[in-house]
This record gives sequence, C-alpha cells and structure tokens, in this order.
Amino acid sequence: MDLTALRNANPEHWTKAAAIRALTLDAVAAANSGHSGMPIGMADVATVLFEKHMKFDVANPQWPDRDRFILSAGHGSMLIYSLLYLMGDAQVTLDQVKNFRQMGALTAGHPENFLIDAVETTTGPLGQGIANAVGFAMAEEMQRAQYGRKLVDHHTYVIAGDGCLMEGISQEAIGLAGRHSLGKLIVLWDNNNITIDGTVELSDRTNQVQRFKASGWQVIEIDGHDPKAIDEALTAAKKSKKPSMIACKTHIALGHAAQDTSKGHGALTDADQMRDAKAAYGWTTGPFDVPADVKSQWEAIGQRGASEREAWEARFAEASQQKQDRFNRAYALDAPKKLSATVKALKKQVSETQPKVATRKSSEMALEVINPIMPETVGGSADLTGSNNTKTGDLGIFDTDNRKGRYVYWGIREHGMASAMNGMALHGGMRPYGGTFFCFTDYARPAMRLAALMKIPTVFVMTHDSIGVGEDGPTHQPVEHLAICRATPNTYVFRPADTVETAEAWEIALTSKDTPSVMTLTRQNLPTVRTEHKLSNLTAKGGYVLAEAEGKRQVILIATGSEVSVAMDAKAKLEADGIGTRVVSMPCMELFAEQDEAYRRKVLPAGPVRVGIEAAMRAGGWDRLLMGERGQEKKAAFVGMDSFGASAPAGELFEKFGITAENTVAKVKELLG
Amino acid sequence: MDLTALRNANPEHWTKAAAIRALTLDAVAAANSGHSGMPIGMADVATVLFEKHMKFDVANPQWPDRDRFILSAGHGSMLIYSLLYLMGDAQVTLDQVKNFRQMGALTAGHPENFLIDAVETTTGPLGQGIANAVGFAMAEEMQRAQYGRKLVDHHTYVIAGDGCLMEGISQEAIGLAGRHSLGKLIVLWDNNNITIDGTVELSDRTNQVQRFKASGWQVIEIDGHDPKAIDEALTAAKKSKKPSMIACKTHIALGHAAQDTSKGHGALTDADQMRDAKAAYGWTTGPFDVPADVKSQWEAIGQRGASEREAWEARFAEASQQKQDRFNRAYALDAPKKLSATVKALKKQVSETQPKVATRKSSEMALEVINPIMPETVGGSADLTGSNNTKTGDLGIFDTDNRKGRYVYWGIREHGMASAMNGMALHGGMRPYGGTFFCFTDYARPAMRLAALMKIPTVFVMTHDSIGVGEDGPTHQPVEHLAICRATPNTYVFRPADTVETAEAWEIALTSKDTPSVMTLTRQNLPTVRTEHKLSNLTAKGGYVLAEAEGKRQVILIATGSEVSVAMDAKAKLEADGIGTRVVSMPCMELFAEQDEAYRRKVLPAGPVRVGIEAAMRAGGWDRLLMGERGQEKKAAFVGMDSFGASAPAGELFEKFGITAENTVAKVKELLG
Repeated sequence: MDLTALRNANPEHWTKAAAIRALTLDAVAAANSGHSGMPIGMADVATVLFEKHMKFDVANPQWPDRDRFILSAGHGSMLIYSLLYLMGDAQVTLDQVKNFRQMGALTAGHPENFLIDAVETTTGPLGQGIANAVGFAMAEEMQRAQYGRKLVDHHTYVIAGDGCLMEGISQEAIGLAGRHSLGKLIVLWDNNNITIDGTVELSDRTNQVQRFKASGWQVIEIDGHDPKAIDEALTAAKKSKKPSMIACKTHIALGHAAQDTSKGHGALTDADQMRDAKAAYGWTTGPFDVPADVKSQWEAIGQRGASEREAWEARFAEASQQKQDRFNRAYALDAPKKLSATVKALKKQVSETQPKVATRKSSEMALEVINPIMPETVGGSADLTGSNNTKTGDLGIFDTDNRKGRYVYWGIREHGMASAMNGMALHGGMRPYGGTFFCFTDYARPAMRLAALMKIPTVFVMTHDSIGVGEDGPTHQPVEHLAICRATPNTYVFRPADTVETAEAWEIALTSKDTPSVMTLTRQNLPTVRTEHKLSNLTAKGGYVLAEAEGKRQVILIATGSEVSVAMDAKAKLEADGIGTRVVSMPCMELFAEQDEAYRRKVLPAGPVRVGIEAAMRAGGWDRLLMGERGQEKKAAFVGMDSFGASAPAGELFEKFGITAENTVAKVKELLG
Repeated sequence: MDLTALRNANPEHWTKAAAIRALTLDAVAAANSGHSGMPIGMADVATVLFEKHMKFDVANPQWPDRDRFILSAGHGSMLIYSLLYLMGDAQVTLDQVKNFRQMGALTAGHPENFLIDAVETTTGPLGQGIANAVGFAMAEEMQRAQYGRKLVDHHTYVIAGDGCLMEGISQEAIGLAGRHSLGKLIVLWDNNNITIDGTVELSDRTNQVQRFKASGWQVIEIDGHDPKAIDEALTAAKKSKKPSMIACKTHIALGHAAQDTSKGHGALTDADQMRDAKAAYGWTTGPFDVPADVKSQWEAIGQRGASEREAWEARFAEASQQKQDRFNRAYALDAPKKLSATVKALKKQVSETQPKVATRKSSEMALEVINPIMPETVGGSADLTGSNNTKTGDLGIFDTDNRKGRYVYWGIREHGMASAMNGMALHGGMRPYGGTFFCFTDYARPAMRLAALMKIPTVFVMTHDSIGVGEDGPTHQPVEHLAICRATPNTYVFRPADTVETAEAWEIALTSKDTPSVMTLTRQNLPTVRTEHKLSNLTAKGGYVLAEAEGKRQVILIATGSEVSVAMDAKAKLEADGIGTRVVSMPCMELFAEQDEAYRRKVLPAGPVRVGIEAAMRAGGWDRLLMGERGQEKKAAFVGMDSFGASAPAGELFEKFGITAENTVAKVKELLG
C-alpha cells in the first residue's frame, strides 16, 4: 500500500499518528514480543479520538467526569502506552515505554488498571472490554440522573477487534446496550479482517453491521485511515440516542511488510522491515525518539481537557455539601457511617427472633436495610430476581425512562452481567451486586477472575449453592464451585450459616475496596445458629468458635453455610455420648487465613480430631498428596503460586515467584530442620 | 385465549398435542416442581416435528443415522419425557413420568444423556444445546463426506428459548453454523416473549430474525400453534442449504390461567387452574391417563422411523467390511489396534533423542503420529492454531467445499468450540479435541463441566499453562485453573513433564470412553525427563517414581509438568549435600487417586518430608484446615460431595450423599477409634 497519498492528504494528522506507529514498533522490538499490528492499524482512529473528541486531562487521569477510553482489544496495549507517553502521562514515561513487558514495568503485556491510573480497565481476555463498557455507560446514565448533568456527562469509547466481537459475551453486551439505549457508548470496531489464524472469513461471515442494528445500535461505516471520516463519525455518534458502532475499515500493520496478514497481528521485530515501515511513515528519527514538535502537539492534546476539568470542579464546588459528600464518599468507596449500626440492629433482631429462612432470603433482609442507606449500590439478577432475592423495595428499575433506577434486569446473561458490573465498579461511584445460581459461576468466571485481578469490590450473589437445589439436578447443583472460587486469588468466598452471618458478610463485602466477594447462599431454609447477639462481626474473622465442647474437647467440627446446623446436630449427638465437641463456623476461609496464627490456633487447637462438613467437593489435590489422606504425614511444603502472575519474560517470573530448584532445596532443608 | 378455534381447526393434531400438555401438568403437579409452560407452549411444534419430520425409531433410539432432537431449553424436560412416554420408549415408562424429578428416576429435572438413551445431550445450562447442535451438525457433515450419503444423512433439530438466545454462547453457535452453511441444522425458537423476570422486553429488544440473518441463516416466521405452518416451515427448512431458524410465535402455558406470564414458566400446580386448562384442551381423563387411541397414534409416530432404520441397516450391511469396521469402531469409541504401538514408538524415539521442546510441541508430535491412524479425531483451535499446535499435516480444513476436513478454525469462540466439541462427541463416531490458552478455560468452563457430567471423552488442549506464558501477563497466566479442573468430578487433568508423558497422556485421552481430558501444556521448552524407554504407560498410574533417592530417602519431591525438571535439579543439589531425594512425577492426580492404596503407598511412603512443586495455586482450602498447614494434625475427615449431584428433593439428596449429622458422628467415632 502506498502511504504517500494518505500522508499528503493530512500531513499534521499523519505525523501524530506516525508517532504511535513508530513507538509501537520500537517497544515491541525491544521487548521482542507483543502485538504491533493493531496499534499501527488503529493509530489514525485513536489520534482523531484524542485530538478532537476525548474529554481527557492527562494531568488528572481519574477526574470523575472524564470520558472513558477502553481498549477492549487489550493485546494492542502499545496503543494506549504510546498515547499516554505522547500526551505526557506522569506514569507512562519514556523509560516505561522502553521497558514494555519487562519485570516491574507499568507497561505490562496487557493494560492493567491497577498499574496505571489512566487505564480504565484490565483487558486482554477478549470481549471483556466491550462488556465492561456497558457497565461504564450504565453507571454514567445512573449518576447523570442522580447527580445531574452538571456533574456527570461523559462518553465511553471502546476500541474492539474481531476477537471481541466473536466472543459470545459481546452479544450480551450489544443486547444490553441496545435495550437500554446507551447513547453515550461508542464502539470503534477495528475492522481489519485479520485474526491469528488468518482472515476472519476462516471462521466467521457475520455481517456485523446488521448484527448491531438488530439490537438497536446506530452503525456508521468509515475508512479508518481517513481522519475527516473518523471525526465526522465520532461527531455523529455523540449525537445519537442509540449506542453507536463505528465500523472502521483498517489495515492491520499498515505500511509494514506484514500489512493485512495474520503475521501482522503479532510482534514485528525484523529490523529491515521496521526500517521500511518507518520510511513509509516518513519517520526519520531513531528508536523511541519523538521529534519535539510532534511531542508538544501531543502534549497539547493531553491538556485539552484541563479547562473542562476546571469548569467541572467549579460546578462541583457549587453543588450542595450533601451532594458533594455523597459523591465523594461513593467515589472513595467509603461506607456510610450508618452501615455498621444498621447491620448490628438487624443482627440483634435476628438473634432474638431466630427466623428459619434460606440465606438467599437472609441476603434480601440485609439488602432491605442496607440499600436505603447506600445509594451507590446497584442490584440486579440474570433473570432470577425472585430466586436470587436481589431486589429490594426502594431500588426502582433501571430503564430508558427511569435512569435513576438502581435495579437492572440483566436478562439471561450471567457473563455480561458480571463484566458490566465490573465496569460499573471501575467507573467509580457505584457498588454493583448481581445474582444468578451459584452453578452458573461457570458462565461468569472470566469476569469474576478479572474482578479479583483488577482489585475491585464487585459482589456476586450466588444462590442455590449446593445439592440443596434439589430437583433441578446436577446441571444446577454446584459441587466444585466453592473450590473454584477459593482457588482464585484475591476473592472473598462467603458461605454464611444464617441471617446473622449473611448480614455480617454483606457488611464486609460492602466495605471492601480491593476484593470482590462471592456470596454463596442457600435455596433451602436454615435455622438461626447465631442465637446470641454479638456486636462484633465474627464473619470478619473468617472462622470462629460457634459452640464450645461441653466436656473434654475431643472433636472439632468445622462447617460452612447450610452444614453448620448439621454440625450443631452432630455435636448434640456426640455430647450425648460424652464426646466433647467444638463447632467452628467457617463462613470465609480467606479471611480466616488472614488472621494471625495465635487466633487460628485458638480456633483450631492441635489435638482433637477434625471433621469438615460442607456439601461440596473437598478438592485440594495437592494437600492430600502432601499430607496424606488423613493428614498422617508430618511435614510438607509447597513450591508454587499464591497470587496472580505478572508480565515479564517467563524465566524471570519463575525466579520472582520462587519456583526454582534453589527455593525447593531451601524448603526441604527447613522441613528437615 | 379461546382454544376452541384451534381445536376445531385440527382436531387430530390437537389431541396428540394435548396429551403432552396434560402429562406435563400432571407430572409437574406430582413433583410439585418443574416447568410447565414451555412444554405446553411448544407441544404443537414438537408434535408436528415428530409426526411429520423426525427420522426416529423409538425402539432404537441410538440408531446412528437418526435425526437428532436437542431440547436446548432443557428446563422444559417434560416435553421430551412426554414425547418418549407417548411414543413407547422402553425407558420412559408411565412410572417414570409419575416419578418426575424424584430420587433415582430417569426423568430428572433436566434431561440427562447418561440416564436416557433417547436424550441426545444434557441440557439445562442455557445456550448449551444450540451450541452442542452445531457440533452434531458438523459431525453429520463430516461423516456424510467420509462415509457417503447412504450411511450418514440426517438432520439436527433444536428447540431453543429466549434464554438460549440471550446467552452469549448462542452467538458463537450462530456464527459457526452460518459460516459453515450447516443446512441440516434447524432451530425452532420458542418465541413466547416470556422470561422468569417478566417479558423479554425487560432485558432485550434484539430482533432475532435480523440477528440470525446477519450470520447467514434462513429465517422463517410462523404461528407456533398452527400445525400446517409448522409443517411447511420444517419442509422449507429441510430444503435449505443454510441453517434454518424457525421463529415459532407461541403462548407459554397456552390455555392455562398463567398463559403469557412469567408465572407460566414455572410449576403450575393449582388444582383448579389445572382442571380449567385441561377442560380448555378438551382433555377429560384423569391424571396420567392417556386415552388408548391417542396413545396408539403416538406409538405409531414412534415407529415411523423403523422402516428407514431397516433400510439403513441393509445399506450398512452392503458397505465394505473396512468401512463397516471403521464406522463401528469409531461409534464404539474403540481405539485402533495400532495406537498402542504408535505411541510406544514415539516414546522410544523421544527417550533416545531427548529433545528439548515445549509440551505443546510434544502434543503436536503425538498428534502427528496418532491422527493418521485415527480418522475419527477432529482437531481445532479457538484462533490459536500456531500456538496450540493442534493442527497436523494430514487433517485438512473443514469448510463448505471440504466437508472431509478434520480441522476446524473455531474462531475466537472458546465456549462455542468446547460446546460444539461436546456435540460432536455426543453425536457419535468422533473424537474431538480443541485448543486454547489454559487461562481461557474460564470461557469454556460451562461446556467443560458438562463434558464431565455427560461422561463424554472430549479433549481440551490447553497450552500456555502457567506463568511460563511470560510477557502476556496475569490475564493470560493461569494460576488457579489446575485447581478448577481438578475440583471438577470425572475429569482427567494431565500436566505432562515432557514428550513421553505427553504421548502417554494422549493415549489415555483417546482411549477414554467416559471421561473428558484436559491437556495442560507449556509454552516454554522443557528437557526430556523420561530418558529411559519404558513400554508401559506410566502416566496411566497418575504418578510414579521418576528418580529414586541415592542414599537414605529423606525427601520426596512431587512435581508436575514444567516443574518436574525443577524437581530433578533440586534433587541433584540435595543429593550433593547428602540428602537422599526421590522425585515423583504426577502428571494426573485423578489417575493416581484411582490406584490402589498399596501402589500409592509405594510411590509416597510415610516418613520422608514432602515438597510439591507446581507453578499454580496450592488451593485445597479444606485440607489445610483439616490437616493443619503442614499436615501436623493427625486425624481428619470430611463430610461432603465427591461427585456431581442428582435430581431429587433436596432433603433426600443430603441423605443420599451422607451430609448428615449421623454420618458426621460415624466419621468422628471412626477417627477416635
């Protein structure tokens, strides 16, 4: 392809976009890995978006009323890093760009929200970004209704690739956005006709324009290398009351020998080909060298939003103190002062009246008192409202004519719900929770994992948590799902035994700032086991002594959820036989593990036999190998992971996480004393 | 709604359909749970389908060239049970219908393929059936090309509801079916405008007709209560070269007080309302009482396919012996005799040459020798062919002009791929395997679980199995996924250490008849650790002594996959310090657990300290609580699940699986001696 005509038609635009292309080539070459083609192909779209449309102030990348930019095609991370470096982001320095994908760099292989402030969401698993964006756009609608247009009025822009649109979750997102007329959501489709295996044609012939229109979107088709067309399309999209999809016809790896090929998707590191591509771009400086005039043009773009931010700050200062406080508290994820007293009051009432209810009902009882004092909560269910008990009286239904509604009918879309809830949490100022059957954790898994990785406090309300489901049978009966959730780093898995523990779990979930919660709740009724009112939140300890042995302590029964009452029954029988039995309730293993050893030893002293009771798989393959099936082996250790990984060359990662012969030897010697 | 006009227009049809409606009401009322509305609403469609179109012989429900019927909306299970009982299925007797959803009944809450021969696939998790059906239809195309139209020539019919179409996986299925012009796939959409939360409008406004057309489907819109229209639509669909979607406008719970409401979705058990509905149907007999003439009409329908089956059997008998043998062997899931020798030859060569390759490459080496001798394998990848190493030279690409192709470019659709692979396996005569990154197990989870539940040997090829992924970072680095797969009942999770173990794992996976396999494979190169050729398949033992301690055995290192060589390095260092160290390779914990205690004790004798090494979460929350963090507790037991659940009232299930105070007491007393 001859780029001369493109360059000559819009020379100023061209040079700015060329800076993205050159930096991408240089960073990928330095890392010797990454994805060059997408940032090169979408450089024109991104340049026009930031130069003419994005409300963005590089000095304040987390200003609440900024436009949001989501790179759903997260493998093209050099697009976002190039933009941020060029605009003068404080975090994404030239050193960071040079250290793309290296140990400890902020410029990870895929953009990580917890590393860079200006990165709105972690992307990489395809389709997540576009579904997150639905939550961002819903949050904007809700908050605009709640706080008024003076404080909340911004767009959500998404760059999505063919991979995002082939993933099923994209259909859930498209359907939701269309249903709710999310007019401020604008998706820029990188229509480059290339996937890793070859042309899109190999696996798909879907007409994306018709598909989006079928769900009520405005669709605009443009040449993704024509800045005027890009600008006009964005202008039209911003005027639309429907969500907009701009189909940007682009050439992956434009101007490189690998243009329009699947090779162009990956790391383009050949020195000669890089040289030729840069020549075609008219780019004459050396690696990572952006001419000062180009850099300053970009820096001006980065500062475009400063005046808008200042105007917003002035408007915010004029808002009522109450509104400011509420806004600031919600964005800080601080719980209202009343929360603790509200939960205590419910606990006291429950301990006194001792209702026999399902914990899904207990959850509703908690939400009925919490939702009125926490206007930042947003409830919902994937078409199981009456089963998940997620809807309380005061919420109102979110709809096109009721943007203040705080309850979302998500439809039969567990994955889209979970991902959009993540988007709401990432947007800021919201605490989303949503329900489905615990077994359908499976459908929501990719988004639940990302909530944990992204360190956001999304709450997943998972009812029907065991064979207690009954007649619906094994497709609907979770057995491995507690193990799945517990194996995931940075996730609180609550399995409360009664209404008191459920209320305590909600208090923890709704004060957490960095950790998502999974509330696993029964379908069937359970007796109240916390019959004595305690002010302190015992669930916050993870596990605690619910009932002490009467005589000599020979046994410790450890149980969760519906099986705590089974343990209490067993204790009664054992005590009747003179066998002193302690019952430990363990509503959250993760929080128990966080307690100090003295506390854990106090709850689980050495000596007594231990029986765990839970209507789920024991799981834990490694532990049984290491300790023997009954714990009869005396000394064991494990060399492995205890967190998510990181972006760096693989060999360095094994060192970093200690999965080495040296560390193994050290552990062995420690065990041998 | 006045049903009189409908009844009078087609009285014979009406009565047959009314039998389904009456049986559904009666069975749900007897169970006091279930879903009445969908079978009632779709009774007309199902009646016409079976009376006029389905190639089905009730006496031989697994005859290979039958049409397949898939109830994707599996909650409407009484539709399928009614049909089978009425047609005279040997398993679904009147007693079974009366025991709908009870302990031990074949008539489980959702249809289970492993309980009833005529049930093609387990459904319930929405969207799975339609995605399975894509695999069924692909398998039919492939086998028609391979064996000829005389032996393979049948349709796949699906009943799907709004829930199926809202789940993202449906888009993956629709896209695949359209791309591959699966003309023999016919989806009947129960277009009743009702979900559990209310009208579809609450959560979706997608124009399904446009949506299907956008992916290349033929769409026919009909009144789903008009038998003539149903018949004509099915006739037109069967002639189409495109997949067909018949949008059947129906009334959920037709003729019942709950018609056209979300209440109609569930269990309609009110006696008066049942009486009124039956009166509207003109149904005058008592509960479960089908008049003899109606029953005999249905039985005749069940026998319609007998002559076609006989004709097929005659054609089959005329086929060459070689073709018959190949067909029978593939349908019996018997491996070819050559498989064992082929794997042994590869192992021998590898042990001699000791290549240093990634196990994803090892997997390709195994497939390169296995695929040519197993024509029933079908490979594929979710757009990561070059990374997953799933494509071997001889397979050919499945396409509209190459139905013999045995490799599928699934696109960026992990979930659709997994579910369609399940469909291929369920169809019979095929062994599908497909690849993605191990981290994206998350996307495929619902289908992977169903493979385990359905007892089918689908093979999931999961490469890039740890932080060995490197620069792509934590979104692409599995840490909890081994624990997730291992927690799932009936799943072999292989993590081979080198090419020898990889070849052994493939041999096990491709001879398994009832258990799916997850092959977790490295991105990075590994040394060959099995340097001494052994004829026997050591991986089949799950774990084995790879290297014995040189002096006194003080240590056992247990490792999997890429960490086996770490263990070998550690052993060398420890032995140098005089610390005798055994290395146990543990490529499959599930198979190790299946060995007898004597073998397990031999591999893991008491005494030495044990260190596990694996670049993954240790997980196993329960075991550490029960045994102490280093196994220092002496006696522990667990009361819980060790398999999938079952369909029965919840209280009975807790008894059945022993999650009771009584069983707890018994375990305690056993531990106390």
